[in-house]
Amino acid sequence: MNHLTHDTIVALATPNGTGAIGVIRLSGPDAVVIANSVFKGKNLTKQASHTIHFGTITDGDLVLDEVLVSLFVGPRSYTRENVVEISCHGSNYIIQSIIKLLIRQGARSAKPGEFTLRAFLNGQFDLSQAEAVADLIASDSKASQQVALQQLRGGYSSELKDLREQLVHFASMIELELDFSEEDVEFANRGQLKQLIHDLTRVIGKLIQSFELGNAVKQGINTVIAGRPNAGKSTLLNALLNEERAIVSHIAGTTRDTIEETLNINGINFRLIDTAGIREATDAIEQIGVQKTMEKISQSALLLYVFDVESITPDELSQDIQNLYKPGLPTLLVANKIDIVPDYKQRYSPALPEGVTLVAISAKEKLHISQLKQLVYDTTIQGRLNGNETLVTNIRHLEALQKTEQALIKTLSGIDMQVTSDFLAMDIKQALHYLGEITGTVTTDDLLDNIFSKFCIGK
Amino acid sequence: MNHLTHDTIVALATPNGTGAIGVIRLSGPDAVVIANSVFKGKNLTKQASHTIHFGTITDGDLVLDEVLVSLFVGPRSYTRENVVEISCHGSNYIIQSIIKLLIRQGARSAKPGEFTLRAFLNGQFDLSQAEAVADLIASDSKASQQVALQQLRGGYSSELKDLREQLVHFASMIELELDFSEEDVEFANRGQLKQLIHDLTRVIGKLIQSFELGNAVKQGINTVIAGRPNAGKSTLLNALLNEERAIVSHIAGTTRDTIEETLNINGINFRLIDTAGIREATDAIEQIGVQKTMEKISQSALLLYVFDVESITPDELSQDIQNLYKPGLPTLLVANKIDIVPDYKQRYSPALPEGVTLVAISAKEKLHISQLKQLVYDTTIQGRLNGNETLVTNIRHLEALQKTEQALIKTLSGIDMQVTSDFLAMDIKQALHYLGEITGTVTTDDLLDNIFSKFCIGK
Repeated sequence: MNHLTHDTIVALATPNGTGAIGVIRLSGPDAVVIANSVFKGKNLTKQASHTIHFGTITDGDLVLDEVLVSLFVGPRSYTRENVVEISCHGSNYIIQSIIKLLIRQGARSAKPGEFTLRAFLNGQFDLSQAEAVADLIASDSKASQQVALQQLRGGYSSELKDLREQLVHFASMIELELDFSEEDVEFANRGQLKQLIHDLTRVIGKLIQSFELGNAVKQGINTVIAGRPNAGKSTLLNALLNEERAIVSHIAGTTRDTIEETLNINGINFRLIDTAGIREATDAIEQIGVQKTMEKISQSALLLYVFDVESITPDELSQDIQNLYKPGLPTLLVANKIDIVPDYKQRYSPALPEGVTLVAISAKEKLHISQLKQLVYDTTIQGRLNGNETLVTNIRHLEALQKTEQALIKTLSGIDMQVTSDFLAMDIKQALHYLGEITGTVTTDDLLDNIFSKFCIGK
Repeated sequence: MNHLTHDTIVALATPNGTGAIGVIRLSGPDAVVIANSVFKGKNLTKQASHTIHFGTITDGDLVLDEVLVSLFVGPRSYTRENVVEISCHGSNYIIQSIIKLLIRQGARSAKPGEFTLRAFLNGQFDLSQAEAVADLIASDSKASQQVALQQLRGGYSSELKDLREQLVHFASMIELELDFSEEDVEFANRGQLKQLIHDLTRVIGKLIQSFELGNAVKQGINTVIAGRPNAGKSTLLNALLNEERAIVSHIAGTTRDTIEETLNINGINFRLIDTAGIREATDAIEQIGVQKTMEKISQSALLLYVFDVESITPDELSQDIQNLYKPGLPTLLVANKIDIVPDYKQRYSPALPEGVTLVAISAKEKLHISQLKQLVYDTTIQGRLNGNETLVTNIRHLEALQKTEQALIKTLSGIDMQVTSDFLAMDIKQALHYLGEITGTVTTDDLLDNIFSKFCIGK
């Protein structure tokens, strides 16, 4: 990717497919001139920003479509460049004809994410905000949308901005000491610097810790459902998805074919993962079945183990718990069919390892399903999502934060060991470098390519 | 469908799927008020028409998205009502959240085609123009798009408008005669009326005749390719599609699974239909093979019969021609592999029935492929498409035109038989009724339901 912004790019901004309208977006210095060269209706170059104009797109004498043109004169636009949006009839043939015409008139086909890249390069927002745009488009639940939106609105960088500026200040003070190194002066108060680094590492540590939850919120929480044949697993699945089926559909086109359904509880997506191993094993949980199940469990954040209180023996139950138990993995033992065996508690009193909770339901009669849902939510979210905090959802940010933390710890021990200013300056610079990578104060072409090539075209 | 227009409707106007942006459209008296009730940024009710405003959509304290809102104050809008278009990030979750919120605020989910129905009901355009909107969205070639666009721009109705108005004038004159029936006066000059009816039937006849071509242009021209095994059919297909493959894709999701490829020549889509029958028959063209092929040929507008000049005998060729020939169906005999047998003309001199043309090519060496394409085009279009004429593409219009024609013929013979004014008035009224159905001067709820229910939602 060559990060030039002196040309004008064009792409379809709406999804492919037939719809009532399609929106074609132009951005760059010649956006208005190029649009105007094919627009009949009025002179677009003489119109105010943020206005809409009806007319036709014509290729010579040939009318391609009747359209509405929206004008955004830079810097009052998404990219801060001149932007024109052409809203045409939603036929792929028409859309492609107009885009080809605009390219003939001097526009260039936009690369994935290039509009947002330009917005970033032109200072519309920082890099973490640009990344939030992609997250927002991909968001599929209230929680993932809220986290992305908060990041887009700058919540992320504002947490670090002040502290980063103070650190920059200290860095320059220490640089100054280097200039006067003969005189053994100390412009940067070491005590204050330590305090600042403590503050920074506390904030950064909190952000690093938020990744586990942030990632779960963004990607959905992998939830394995296991159980012996006829334990009522699919009835439970239906009961859980009951009201959801209409709005949360099957995940189409995903290659992770083990994911069967998405269950949304309080705005969080739980990805319910079936365990074919147990289902297909003719006998209990054993051999390959156990191995496959354990694999899936090892990639999950929650295990729902369903058992049938009518048929399972206490010994079999203990054996299953023993086989499936993984320390650190929240697990719900779901006792099913309590409508048939209301006094199930007298039959089962399994020893529950740490992190394992017993819950009794009837999937068929829909008894205690909403309690089970709440328990699924509480067990994984555990009150950690208050809606206002900043969550790290991006592994690139996580890595940069971790590297910043290491550099800060090194700086701290340098202060304690009273290293010379030049070593201290080096450590602080390194911390600032990694911190800068998050918001894009520090970037490389490779980094930008890597980030924006994952965007969709037209954004 | 209840054709009320005093409520406000909402729908996604862009295709489903993930894209950079999605556009949600509101139309109705409360469109601006409803949008304003969930928009933070400025007071939308105080803004001018055709302006764009940045802000957030909020559900109470919860920010759903950062959006651009476009305002169209009626009657300066598509529907002639107040229209608001909300351009949000293209996440289905966000789009659905915003639509649900707007519905909670008083909007109603739009039915298919309801925006265009309102545009029609509010006099934005006539019924044939409204129908052209759907055709335009579905257009997939230059020709189909041009025909739809011309219809949208009123080309259709303008052909009939003047004549219709004159006929209305005559109808009222004749009605007047009825009021003075005792006095035996003739307000409507019978000679002039006959002349008008002649003019009308000439225009209508021309439109009726244009349907065959119009339909081909809209739907694509069914072209059967037949040939013995190894005649070079698939090589020919590849040679024909060579430059097209990148732009014209396989027809996805069509149920007519015999259609394999679409070839665009001079803006016309030719739907190339393979004949499995011939391909699978182990021996020549026979039995079921012939029957299946003949079925496909009977539904087609053009037959390409490919034969291998290296291996087919003159007798076999004559036999195939005899088997496949259908009077009235343009047929191209494609002599293939002339690179191997350049003196093929000495071997074959088949008797060519009317409408059959011989063309020699080499599919492998791409010899004379462009000539073949031009011949395919000329054979079916035959200079009938000049780009300015109005083509009837809609079977509803065709039927109305045919009924109008019949009523006019009846009127004409009535004049000749000197029937009384009241009979004459009845016939003219019937002609006017059918004529009015095309442009929607005469409509019924059933008719409108039938037309608009075929539209996509959001249009």
